[in-house]
Amino acid sequence: MKGLFYPRTPSGKASIVPPVPWHYSGELITFEYRTDPAVIAALLPEGFEPAREDPGAVAAIWADWQSCSDTGGEITDPVRGQYKEMFFVVRCLFQGQPYSRCIYIWVDKEFAMLRGQHQGYPKKLGSIHMSRPAYVGRGGPHLAPGQRFGVSLAAFDRRLAEGVLTLGDPCERPGFVNALPMAHNRWLPAIETDGTDSLNEVVTMSSFDVTLGRCFRGEFELTLYDSPVEELLAIAPREKIAAYWHEVGASWRAGRTLARRNLA
Amino acid sequence: MKGLFYPRTPSGKASIVPPVPWHYSGELITFEYRTDPAVIAALLPEGFEPAREDPGAVAAIWADWQSCSDTGGEITDPVRGQYKEMFFVVRCLFQGQPYSRCIYIWVDKEFAMLRGQHQGYPKKLGSIHMSRPAYVGRGGPHLAPGQRFGVSLAAFDRRLAEGVLTLGDPCERPGFVNALPMAHNRWLPAIETDGTDSLNEVVTMSSFDVTLGRCFRGEFELTLYDSPVEELLAIAPREKIAAYWHEVGASWRAGRTLARRNLA
Amino acid sequence: MKGLFYPRTPSGKASIVPPVPWHYSGELITFEYRTDPAVIAALLPEGFEPAREDPGAVAAIWADWQSCSDTGGEITDPVRGQYKEMFFVVRCLFQGQPYSRCIYIWVDKEFAMLRGQHQGYPKKLGSIHMSRPAYVGRGGPHLAPGQRFGVSLAAFDRRLAEGVLTLGDPCERPGFVNALPMAHNRWLPAIETDGTDSLNEVVTMSSFDVTLGRCFRGEFELTLYDSPVEELLAIAPREKIAAYWHEVGASWRAGRTLARRNLA
Amino acid sequence: MKGLFYPRTPSGKASIVPPVPWHYSGELITFEYRTDPAVIAALLPEGFEPAREDPGAVAAIWADWQSCSDTGGEITDPVRGQYKEMFFVVRCLFQGQPYSRCIYIWVDKEFAMLRGQHQGYPKKLGSIHMSRPAYVGRGGPHLAPGQRFGVSLAAFDRRLAEGVLTLGDPCERPGFVNALPMAHNRWLPAIETDGTDSLNEVVTMSSFDVTLGRCFRGEFELTLYDSPVEELLAIAPREKIAAYWHEVGASWRAGRTLARRNLA
Repeated sequence: MKGLFYPRTPSGKASIVPPVPWHYSGELITFEYRTDPAVIAALLPEGFEPAREDPGAVAAIWADWQSCSDTGGEITDPVRGQYKEMFFVVRCLFQGQPYSRCIYIWVDKEFAMLRGQHQGYPKKLGSIHMSRPAYVGRGGPHLAPGQRFGVSLAAFDRRLAEGVLTLGDPCERPGFVNALPMAHNRWLPAIETDGTDSLNEVVTMSSFDVTLGRCFRGEFELTLYDSPVEELLAIAPREKIAAYWHEVGASWRAGRTLARRNLA
Repeated sequence: MKGLFYPRTPSGKASIVPPVPWHYSGELITFEYRTDPAVIAALLPEGFEPAREDPGAVAAIWADWQSCSDTGGEITDPVRGQYKEMFFVVRCLFQGQPYSRCIYIWVDKEFAMLRGQHQGYPKKLGSIHMSRPAYVGRGGPHLAPGQRFGVSLAAFDRRLAEGVLTLGDPCERPGFVNALPMAHNRWLPAIETDGTDSLNEVVTMSSFDVTLGRCFRGEFELTLYDSPVEELLAIAPREKIAAYWHEVGASWRAGRTLARRNLA
Repeated sequence: MKGLFYPRTPSGKASIVPPVPWHYSGELITFEYRTDPAVIAALLPEGFEPAREDPGAVAAIWADWQSCSDTGGEITDPVRGQYKEMFFVVRCLFQGQPYSRCIYIWVDKEFAMLRGQHQGYPKKLGSIHMSRPAYVGRGGPHLAPGQRFGVSLAAFDRRLAEGVLTLGDPCERPGFVNALPMAHNRWLPAIETDGTDSLNEVVTMSSFDVTLGRCFRGEFELTLYDSPVEELLAIAPREKIAAYWHEVGASWRAGRTLARRNLA
Repeated sequence: MKGLFYPRTPSGKASIVPPVPWHYSGELITFEYRTDPAVIAALLPEGFEPAREDPGAVAAIWADWQSCSDTGGEITDPVRGQYKEMFFVVRCLFQGQPYSRCIYIWVDKEFAMLRGQHQGYPKKLGSIHMSRPAYVGRGGPHLAPGQRFGVSLAAFDRRLAEGVLTLGDPCERPGFVNALPMAHNRWLPAIETDGTDSLNEVVTMSSFDVTLGRCFRGEFELTLYDSPVEELLAIAPREKIAAYWHEVGASWRAGRTLARRNLA
């Protein structure tokens, strides 16, 4: 039976995600800020510790992706490869090593949601918008100082976050909060639904063939909103650090299990 | 840390699904038919056997659900409780016992997708439509003999299935294919993505407080279409069995693990 | 060339709306309240006067429709017939006669938007949700006193309105604000886009074969929100009048022109 | 009362479209081909004649737009400015002058639909996807010879068109079919819905401040599909002409009425 996730079939054709490796090309807008370090610490599960330096640092990131598998079939049928993503990243320690960790994330396609689950990203669905560079005309922002890029996130018909990036000068790298290997938990609650887990893994992963494209620094405004099923007000900005627009290309094949606790 | 799936937080407020129990009220349209039994047998994973009688029997089911948790908050904010679903069910044997098993399923909301993953349903997202009863006027079908109800399923901007139910007389029960306890696999591929699984469970479950509402027999037409990422033509109808419209109310709290194989 | 609106073709098959008559079956939730009469008066165009009695009365209405043309093709392909709608209605006088008038309206399908434009409804697109009656189970509200139905409206990823109806006893009619023949303007700005109109008509219309189904009175909560492209806070409730859940069936074939002013 | 279309209010804030001028920045993929000239001729209304040369030439165009009004508010709230579009254009003569004319068009946002109605474009809603250039990584096509861009169009959960552009060399201009001033009809059927029109105008328009950006020639595959409410098979390609990827910036303020026939 073939198929990474499900449904598994003799051919694997119907699998919700194609075989690895997965290739990504995207544009990202990153807002780095500081929030209450105690709130971040409380979001880290057993075995994790807060980052030693700047433990309240958060990256709020919007991304506009194109992605494909080795067949490239998703490139010529872009409804199966394009998606947008908004996520919050913090830093932490696990087994003494520093990692980045995604605490909240939304995407707008189901295949991206399942690829993310495999990697331990806590993906929900949302409606995500971000300006992209215009190369001619006045309908969108150009990649030039002073130009303004907008971003927004909504779920269940409520706006959860919105912001504006005002572009500054080119720079080398898009911040430090999302710059480490990721460390995520992959939880599967037991079907007995009694508070136990069938599996609880800590996994880490990095991409390969990472190419940074154009990168600009900037300034930002960010507003977070409440919802009956979100906790974003608790991680609202207390102090701004920096903002970035940048391009990235990367591929992903596999991660590594750092710890595994089975129920049985 | 609270939260059934993710994200897990100290309060659990942001969890993608609310705590069990979950309550459901829905209208379903079921088309039962026979397809090639060898195709169904090939879709059963290790440890499963085809049903002894009528092993090619399939139920194609459209459902229009309202659902909520014990708080009832989803009832007064229906964007968080309503969803539609289309699924294919077959029967099988596991450890000598007969079960129903969902082989393919689509829903149109993410919370339904994750509740389904917990239960081992191989849920994808799709666009699902079905007529609902009209009680006055000519805009929709009434619950009366000869009235016609339409159904459709699409994913990635391609129509995958469509059909028409022509209502007949009231009856007692909505078919036999989806009438047994479910037996599903819950697979979690290892993050090493090397073809091994971190977890492979066979789970079973039933609802409680099941109430059957109105139920009608009928006749049906069903057409399945191809897609680069589906295998529905392989389970196309060879012979029709029966069709039904019915209502059901049910609650769900937990299942039971029948078998578990860990990687570690 | 056939086709009511566009595109017009020799066959008319591709027309965005099918030929009249159009048939509707729906469930509606109505909240009647009083707002500032001066705001309502200021929303009435030239030739209109406020209602003599209770000129600040507003009906905020959510509707869940199934609709079709004489062919009934939309019933068996429900993606082309089902839609939801949220609208605000006031009363007014034109040429000394009393009318109902829709001041704001959102639908979630384009065919409904164009049928509405023909009738002078100022239709935008939105995301609309409303509870519907459950007949078994606990997943949704039943048609019984004390049961709670939720409604919401969003556009451009912002929630614009939400409310809760608590059902009371059966009653005869669903309020008075939306009970008169409608009087709407149909404006077409000149392509010169210089502030002049190519056409400015006042039209009136009523449905035929109207059937009222079940009808219940109730109590309600309603909250309106702001947006960069809406003016709902200006018509927020000052005093509640009544709330209703009811069913209606109706057909529509034509209206009548009350006044027409051409540019040429 | 302010507001170009509707709703008209004292402030104009709630109007479905902002005041002109409107500014656009976009990427377009154009497939030019020849179909049966008799079919094109039959789609031209009274007063129009087919183009003298190459009367069966059609341009099938996918466009990915960002747009805004003079306030620029749509740039920093991109859900209100971004949209995708797919349209078919032919050439024709009116009053002896050559024009381009849009015969079918779909967009995925309502504000774009209404701006188009003002300009006489027969806009429906659809789901539209097109590859966009990747500047780093393997997730999408690069602007280089041999790279493949995909496009698709769907409406009512049915795929209507899909194609692939294989990029060739840079070129000067993106084809000839959509290169003339547009000539469109603006029809408003009488509310009496008796087959007469309240208004039937022929309008023409051009953009200003048009800037062509990068432009590439290419080769293409295009497949059109049937639907109960479309007529695309009738304009299927018989012979390919050329394909293009290009960028354009433009602004629009007003058009000019070429002919007007009122009912009254």
